[in-house]
Order: sequence, then structure tokens, then C-alpha cells
Amino acid sequence: MRSIKEALDHRYGDFPHPVDPQLEGSSFLRGLASRGACRRFRDEPVPRALIDTLAALALAAPTKSDLQQRDILIIEDAAIRERIDTLLAAQDWIPKAPHFLVFLGNNRRQRQVHDWTGIPFANDHLDAFFNASVDAGIVLTSFVLAAEAAGLGCCPVSVIRNHAQEVSDLLGLPGHVFPVAGLGFGWPQGPSYISLRLPLEATLHRDRYRDCTREMVTAYDRRRNDVFPYRQQRNVARFGKSDSYGWSEEKARQYAEPERADFGGFVNARGFNLS
Amino acid sequence: MRSIKEALDHRYGDFPHPVDPQLEGSSFLRGLASRGACRRFRDEPVPRALIDTLAALALAAPTKSDLQQRDILIIEDAAIRERIDTLLAAQDWIPKAPHFLVFLGNNRRQRQVHDWTGIPFANDHLDAFFNASVDAGIVLTSFVLAAEAAGLGCCPVSVIRNHAQEVSDLLGLPGHVFPVAGLGFGWPQGPSYISLRLPLEATLHRDRYRDCTREMVTAYDRRRNDVFPYRQQRNVARFGKSDSYGWSEEKARQYAEPERADFGGFVNARGFNLS
Repeated sequence: MRSIKEALDHRYGDFPHPVDPQLEGSSFLRGLASRGACRRFRDEPVPRALIDTLAALALAAPTKSDLQQRDILIIEDAAIRERIDTLLAAQDWIPKAPHFLVFLGNNRRQRQVHDWTGIPFANDHLDAFFNASVDAGIVLTSFVLAAEAAGLGCCPVSVIRNHAQEVSDLLGLPGHVFPVAGLGFGWPQGPSYISLRLPLEATLHRDRYRDCTREMVTAYDRRRNDVFPYRQQRNVARFGKSDSYGWSEEKARQYAEPERADFGGFVNARGFNLS
Repeated sequence: MRSIKEALDHRYGDFPHPVDPQLEGSSFLRGLASRGACRRFRDEPVPRALIDTLAALALAAPTKSDLQQRDILIIEDAAIRERIDTLLAAQDWIPKAPHFLVFLGNNRRQRQVHDWTGIPFANDHLDAFFNASVDAGIVLTSFVLAAEAAGLGCCPVSVIRNHAQEVSDLLGLPGHVFPVAGLGFGWPQGPSYISLRLPLEATLHRDRYRDCTREMVTAYDRRRNDVFPYRQQRNVARFGKSDSYGWSEEKARQYAEPERADFGGFVNARGFNLS
């Protein structure tokens, strides 16, 4: 495994500090520095006790105001899994992931507590959806980092939101409970790649927001292409072939097509007020 | 430090599996099992190089579709920090936290990329706000877990959202950039408490959602009170004194008063379409 310093230099183009040898001694922090998504797995199941342990560890992460507005749903039933795989078939690695789970935002429990105590719920506005969403993202992250520390490989699956209603029906989600992300995981076939990230001058600010410039993104596009050039260009029918195709062109093309335009409608139908 | 098994038994009331000795050998996983918020710090600064390293490690966490719609803003300027402390004065530990940073959702960069490439942005709906929010929650979590692995104590601060507009003005946040959470951190004065969590039967589902019952919550209220009874009851003027005051009563009373009812208006004013 690379040192933290090497991994950060590689990931950001340059990391401007030496890294404390004590940090370098933490296998968790070294792993975090070098981590990446895993989409190729060995054909070997992960014991249920290990999955449950990782879920219990993940749920130890912070939660807004101790409200615990997030849950984990582990898919074990082969028929349900097959249905999920079919819904998400556009990502061909998903059916081959040995395990799949779904992170849920859950504002239902809070409302139940109000019903049970007879105390009115006075916060039926954007906050209810927002807090549960962020809480689910928090537990997703702690699951991934715990799983990676246990030697597993993971890939979060946000495309599950493109089928939010079907997934909710399939998993029997009641009102005010919604899928935030899926996660495919298992024992990795090999090490993950370090996905290069925008330079820290674009994403790490001091005291006041500093705008990202076109030059920063262009340099990032080039740096990525030197390591992992895109093998295919997206939507050539609409945009043609680009000679300088990179991250920014890829992401702009991706969001040039409406995706999840019905997600707000779905969230409303779950009972949330988004104003 | 407790073993993972002991910590999970304590946190959830019962953890139904033995824990693999190899997991017990990971100091990161043992720390995660026993982790908790820290609000009491030694009066000793954290070196800037360490904070930057943790930020760079945190930004290595997953990000939806590689879009990197989240940033970290470190507050170093004493005048800005003082203004933040004043805004958040309701939480008296915050001014004593040696360091403070803010996790930002950032959908602005994506829109800039569309401007620069001349490719239209076709996803001006809830998704834009949602993805950036979850991405910020992901980076918050990886920062906290990395900082704890480095020996620091942390407490996320969601109350910053109660002052979202003032904080945005203070930090010079442009449109489509918004604060998701703050974080106070430093060297801890002592070990953290393990905050007890709802039983796994309420938050960990298999294949289909299983509803939380009143009995589960009542048992949880009792179990918490055996360890950390609430020292004060909330809003006694409105609700009176309760003999069985516990987590559910506390949380229902908290959300019986409108909080952040203007957050949707703030997010709209940042330029987001929430439908």
C-alpha cells in the first residue's frame, strides 16, 4: 500500500505538507488515503455475522441531534435481489456484486414518536427530508470505511434513486422512509484505483469561499487523462467527438440529460413537504 | 478501550453475534465501535498540516457519480470564528472548541462546468440540492472518522443550519453553495461516552422494512435512562414535568417547536429548485 503522502500527492496532484509518521502508522488512514470504489469481486460470500457487525459499527456514526433518522436494509432474498439487479441493469457490475444493501432516510420514526407521546410535530418542512438524507449519507460512509478496513471492497450506488418508487414498493418502505443509496460489496478481486480528485485549492477553503477557476478544472482534466483517460465519450450522437474529452466534458454531458427529474415528486409522495 | 463486542452490546442493548478476532485487532474498528461526540477539549492547537491532511483524507471518501459536490471550509481567522461562536452561542461548548470547520454542499462547480463547456444543465430540480447535501454528509463522516483515528475528538454542529444565511454571508458563499454542518474539534480532555442507539431490530432491516414499535422505543428509553438519564427536561413550561422522561419524550419536545422553518426559503434563495 502507498504511504499517505504518496497517495495524497497522486490523488490531488500535489499535497503541500509532510505527513506525520504517526499517521502513516495507522493502517486505517493509509487505507483511506488510497481507497477507491470496487466493482470486481471474488465469488465468495461475506458471512452474515460480519455484515451485521459492519452495520452495527456504521450505525455508531454521528446522527443529527441524536435523532437516528437513517436505517440500513440488507438484501438477502434472491428474488428481491434479482428484481433490484434488473432495475439497475444499466450498471453491469451490480448483479455480480455478492452483496447489496440499501441506506434509507427515515423520518417516520420521529413522527411515530410524536404520535405515541401525543406531542405535535411542528417541523413538516424541508429540514425533515434534509436531515434524514444527510444522516443516511453519514451511515453509508461509515459502513464503507468500516468494510474497507475489514478488507472488503464497496461501491455506492446512487442510481437506485432513478427507481426510487419501484425500490420503495419492493422493500415495503412506508411513508417518510426513502432510499438514499445502495451499496454493492464483497471481497475484492484486486486493489482499487485511486480516483483522482479536484485539486485542494478548489475544494478546501480557508475562512472565505474561493471560487474554482476554469484553469483549475482544465489542469485537473489533463491530470486525470494522463492516468485514466475515458475509454468512451458520452452521448456522441448529441455532442460529437471531442479531442480534449475529460472529466468536465464527461460530467457536463452527463447532466445535459434530465435524470431523476421525478425525484421531488417521489419525495413529496412519500409525505415530505419540501418547502 | 472496550472490545468491539462489548461496545456493540452496550450501544444496542445486545449484539447477537460473536465478533471476529481479526476485526477486534483493528484499532480503527475498535475505536468506531466505542466512538462518541467530544465537547471538551485540551487547550492545545492542532497543527495546520494535520488538519489539512485530515481534510485531504476526508475528500477521498465516495462522491456521487464522481461529481465532488462538496467542499470543506476551515475557519482560521479569529474574527470570523468569533462571529460563528456568537451565532451558535446557544451551544456553550462551541467557543471552547479549538478548531471549527464547515462542510459545504457545492452544486456551483457543476454549473460552472456547464457554462465553460457550453453544454446546457438539464437537472435543475431536487436532485441538485440532494446530491450535494449527501456528498457533504459523506465528507463530514470521513473527516470525523479520520480525525478520531488520529486521536482527536469531534462534534458535528447541525445548528449552523439555523443561521444558514448569516453563515453564508460571513463565509462569502456564492449561489448553489450552502453549509450542511459545522464541526468543532481538538484534542479531547478524556474518552467519549458511547451514546446508546436504538436497538438493531428497529434500524437494521432484512429484505423488507420492518416497522419500529412503541415497545422497542420504550425499552430503549429505559435502557438509556439507566446509563445517562436526562439531567433536564425540555420545555417544562409547555409540557410539564414527566416521570418517565426519556429519549422519545425529549425528541418529541424538541420537534414540537418549529426550527429551521426558513431553511427551504434559504435553499431556494441559494438558487436551488426544490421540486
